[in-house]
Amino acid sequence: MPGTLTDSSEAGAIMKNKQQPSGMPFQRYVPFHEQIKVELPDRTWPDKRIERAPQWCAVDLRDGNQALVDPMSPDRKRLMFDLLVKMGYKEIEVGFPSASQMDFDFVRHLIDDDAIPDDVTIQVLVQAREHLIRRTYESIKGAKRAIVHFYNSTSVLQRDVVFRSDREGVKQIAVDAAKLCRSLEHLVEETEIIYQYSPESYTGTELDYAVEVCDAVTEVIEPTPERKIIINLPATVEMSTPNVYADSIEWMHRNLARRDSIVLSLHPHNDRGTGVAAAELGYMAGADRIEGCLFGNGERTGNVDLIALGLNLFTQGVDPEIDFSDLDEIRRVAEHCNQMRVHERSPWAGDLVYTAFSGSHQDAIKKGFERMSQEAAEAGVSVDEMTWAVPYLPIDPKDVGRSYEAVIRVNSQSGKGGVAYLLKADHGLDLPRRLQVELSNIVQARTDTEGGEVTSAQIWNIFGDEYLPSDPANYDDGFQRWGRFELTHFQTASTSTGESSIVGEIRDGEVVHDFDSTGNGPIDALLTMLREHSVEVQLHDYVEHTMSQGQDARAASYVELSVNGVTVWGVGIDHNSQNASLKAVISGVNRGLRSKAVADVS
Amino acid sequence: MPGTLTDSSEAGAIMKNKQQPSGMPFQRYVPFHEQIKVELPDRTWPDKRIERAPQWCAVDLRDGNQALVDPMSPDRKRLMFDLLVKMGYKEIEVGFPSASQMDFDFVRHLIDDDAIPDDVTIQVLVQAREHLIRRTYESIKGAKRAIVHFYNSTSVLQRDVVFRSDREGVKQIAVDAAKLCRSLEHLVEETEIIYQYSPESYTGTELDYAVEVCDAVTEVIEPTPERKIIINLPATVEMSTPNVYADSIEWMHRNLARRDSIVLSLHPHNDRGTGVAAAELGYMAGADRIEGCLFGNGERTGNVDLIALGLNLFTQGVDPEIDFSDLDEIRRVAEHCNQMRVHERSPWAGDLVYTAFSGSHQDAIKKGFERMSQEAAEAGVSVDEMTWAVPYLPIDPKDVGRSYEAVIRVNSQSGKGGVAYLLKADHGLDLPRRLQVELSNIVQARTDTEGGEVTSAQIWNIFGDEYLPSDPANYDDGFQRWGRFELTHFQTASTSTGESSIVGEIRDGEVVHDFDSTGNGPIDALLTMLREHSVEVQLHDYVEHTMSQGQDARAASYVELSVNGVTVWGVGIDHNSQNASLKAVISGVNRGLRSKAVADVS
Repeated sequence: MPGTLTDSSEAGAIMKNKQQPSGMPFQRYVPFHEQIKVELPDRTWPDKRIERAPQWCAVDLRDGNQALVDPMSPDRKRLMFDLLVKMGYKEIEVGFPSASQMDFDFVRHLIDDDAIPDDVTIQVLVQAREHLIRRTYESIKGAKRAIVHFYNSTSVLQRDVVFRSDREGVKQIAVDAAKLCRSLEHLVEETEIIYQYSPESYTGTELDYAVEVCDAVTEVIEPTPERKIIINLPATVEMSTPNVYADSIEWMHRNLARRDSIVLSLHPHNDRGTGVAAAELGYMAGADRIEGCLFGNGERTGNVDLIALGLNLFTQGVDPEIDFSDLDEIRRVAEHCNQMRVHERSPWAGDLVYTAFSGSHQDAIKKGFERMSQEAAEAGVSVDEMTWAVPYLPIDPKDVGRSYEAVIRVNSQSGKGGVAYLLKADHGLDLPRRLQVELSNIVQARTDTEGGEVTSAQIWNIFGDEYLPSDPANYDDGFQRWGRFELTHFQTASTSTGESSIVGEIRDGEVVHDFDSTGNGPIDALLTMLREHSVEVQLHDYVEHTMSQGQDARAASYVELSVNGVTVWGVGIDHNSQNASLKAVISGVNRGLRSKAVADVS
Repeated sequence: MPGTLTDSSEAGAIMKNKQQPSGMPFQRYVPFHEQIKVELPDRTWPDKRIERAPQWCAVDLRDGNQALVDPMSPDRKRLMFDLLVKMGYKEIEVGFPSASQMDFDFVRHLIDDDAIPDDVTIQVLVQAREHLIRRTYESIKGAKRAIVHFYNSTSVLQRDVVFRSDREGVKQIAVDAAKLCRSLEHLVEETEIIYQYSPESYTGTELDYAVEVCDAVTEVIEPTPERKIIINLPATVEMSTPNVYADSIEWMHRNLARRDSIVLSLHPHNDRGTGVAAAELGYMAGADRIEGCLFGNGERTGNVDLIALGLNLFTQGVDPEIDFSDLDEIRRVAEHCNQMRVHERSPWAGDLVYTAFSGSHQDAIKKGFERMSQEAAEAGVSVDEMTWAVPYLPIDPKDVGRSYEAVIRVNSQSGKGGVAYLLKADHGLDLPRRLQVELSNIVQARTDTEGGEVTSAQIWNIFGDEYLPSDPANYDDGFQRWGRFELTHFQTASTSTGESSIVGEIRDGEVVHDFDSTGNGPIDALLTMLREHSVEVQLHDYVEHTMSQGQDARAASYVELSVNGVTVWGVGIDHNSQNASLKAVISGVNRGLRSKAVADVS
């Protein structure tokens, strides 16, 4: 009988725990250990360390896609597939082709378009049902290699409620599916078939039964050490602390027949917020392979986050065997494909994870950077070659294409809130988080020079001076001199297929040019024209909103650009929302060129 | 020497791992075990189970607040404090009063305004520096009870880089602080002082040294079993898998002097995405207390998520001793205070965590609900009293004030994307996630009846028919008959202090009334007026954006309302953004009354 934690109320008189019953109906829930027995007192996994990347499988196009309110269109699916390939994933679950015509068509598209590199294996999911399995084999015809991933649910609850069957009956479903699969191999003779079997809802399945079903499947499939089967043990619902999942994996690892012919795979979900831990401890417990999604997309709370897992390895000096060096680009593609934002605090990738707010943190980080520079100089090497050792920054943000940001807070008028809050409250501007961080440093730099507390009016002036063109009335020729470029006048036109043109006049320094440019939209057409003026510019992010200011409705537009290699934000405000976005591009380009000029001089 | 995982490449010929080196500079990172030695082969924590809630401490107002681009205003701080009290937290870290005048003023406000219930203890953080400690005692004068939480950084890296001191020197900082604290107690004689000490950056500190510093501090403080000290061991930066943190906690638990006079506390951050696991395993390893933030707010990737921890206990039949029964309201307050959204997939609270998308999941869930109803009927009890057992739903959403949603996907024209995507692409409407879920069911219900595939034009018609008033031209008296209420004409006025009035004419059924109402804003004034028409209505969420449609700029406004107990969305579209929001309220109220009428009949 394991020990239990029941004594926290023993804390003494003054530090006595004053917590009260919540009134919530916790009695309705049965503890996991009363549902499923997992006992492994001689577990070995807590003494293991991870020193090599697992075999990864990305399931964004299946489990991830299946959990979107709007599933990906074929274009977005292909973008996701190409991203995963580019990052280095070699096994990619691409859909559930027998359940959805769109998934079927996408598998066909990948094969027919020759989009699958030789060293990449596609994986297709199928329920253990005859007509679905048959349809699945149709979908993969012509692929060089494919993982046929069949599953049936084996949990106590699902056997009872969903299948109304007993252990034998549910095992037979799996065995029949395995037999059918083998009998269909002749239909796809040019394809190397690898099998994967999942006892779905594994976490709710008795371990002895899970091993019985898996063994029955492997007996049919007859894997060998040279031609293994993947046995995948999903935490379809995360039901316990992650150490219990790890115990169960080590138990399976020890008890599965033909273990040398099995790739033992994990598929953790994140209901309890411990999916990453479950994957790591389960891998230490004997698994070989992990299935997950970028940024933890997937049903409900999502699948385990492949970004967190990969970069966690990186921090331990272990090659993740996946390229995360342009994490912002990975994130942009995933956000576009999933139509879902990555949270500000998402591990290694969120907007705020390399930002320090506290003065003592900033001071320690500064000292860490200084020490590294000093030691690099003494050793005569580049700082980038030095062992990373900076307090509060577990990795060098540059290694994933990010930068460290120190947000030094401005003392705004007490009680009125900070910079972004005042811009929102007093001017209706709702700045994207990364622009908030950029602006906070600009306000700080100005107020360091000028000293004292900052009023909302001063913040507005600093914001306008930095992001918005000054009033043309200040110049007697009617032009603004706020930056290198100014769109003096223009017209745009768009067709229903999305082709746009922009024709007009632009001031470049003191010279005014006519221009005529086309693109996928007005912004794209404008960017094309700017590139012809030798500005290397890419659009990274774009946000626009109405400023809620009564009758006089205006739109504020924010764009994040890369301008000659510098990442900056631009802002545009206009009664016309399209014009606001064009102004924002000009604002960003002018700011990027200005900061580049400063950097080149210093 | 622990075992290592280096053999995943042994997978056989066909299932061979084809992963390649990433090219990332992983060689720059030193594995944790080469930095800090944590060895505990006779660990006992993996055999423990959690059967009682820990002593909670909420640090939203300190660690959480400190990590916001814009810290909370005093109003928002007070809202957060009152929320935490209402939920049942008895220890609340309210600030770092010596480092910030705003924090100092807020502590004074709580004390002077008598806002702290008798059974709640405030906690104030302070660095181990003389002038800061003195200032801290000034801040707490008059409080009934307070936890003075002093810290200094003890890690190898910070001793070297930041303090340029040795083990003795850094220990002396802690000892001197403890002595100073004791010498200042006479200044606050009416206040019960409880001490908390944190060896900050504990995860980067040698264990033998951490225990040496903590023991030196307790020797000065002289805690007793009746008057304990809190020793808090922060994962200031999460540096290893959570089992290693648990090992280190168990080692400290065994080796700390005066253990019976110590409340052992955890403060996990979430850099690796394993903060929840670290807290759970550390608690099993002998800790008594956990510090964290709602929804995992806090520096970088955040502090451990108190919502996840509390509801994880709940799923195991353990009373969290915190009331999560209105999780949406908790979330709304936290989002308002932090000005940061909770992610769609955030454990137990995200918009999508009780949503099922896959047909097989929906089928299993349906069968689970049916079984529960049947068994409840047989037992003659309410379903709410039954043990919860529904596949894919780890808790009854109703227990936290949510509901289960099944998103049945509509076959829109292949390749064009789903409902929300088409509304965005073709009509410039960017629907909030929960409205997307609501709408998907409406579209599904209509197309079930009508059959076949759905075009973008049909989706637009269904959307308009459900959310937008029909054309008044259809009725010869010029009124619309789309719902019970119609704002036929109105005027609004607002003052600079935010007071608003709305005067106009409203149709209620067939009767037209004049009205004149005031509020904190036009929406508030409108809601007040509707309440006078016997509609019980609350505003839950409000989102507005420009529809990017060229010259003819319009705003779309979305409101989530509770209407006589029914939660519904309303939508308004108008050239004037304020009018759009008022239309959205009318849309939501009409829809709520309509669905209530349907529910009351059926």
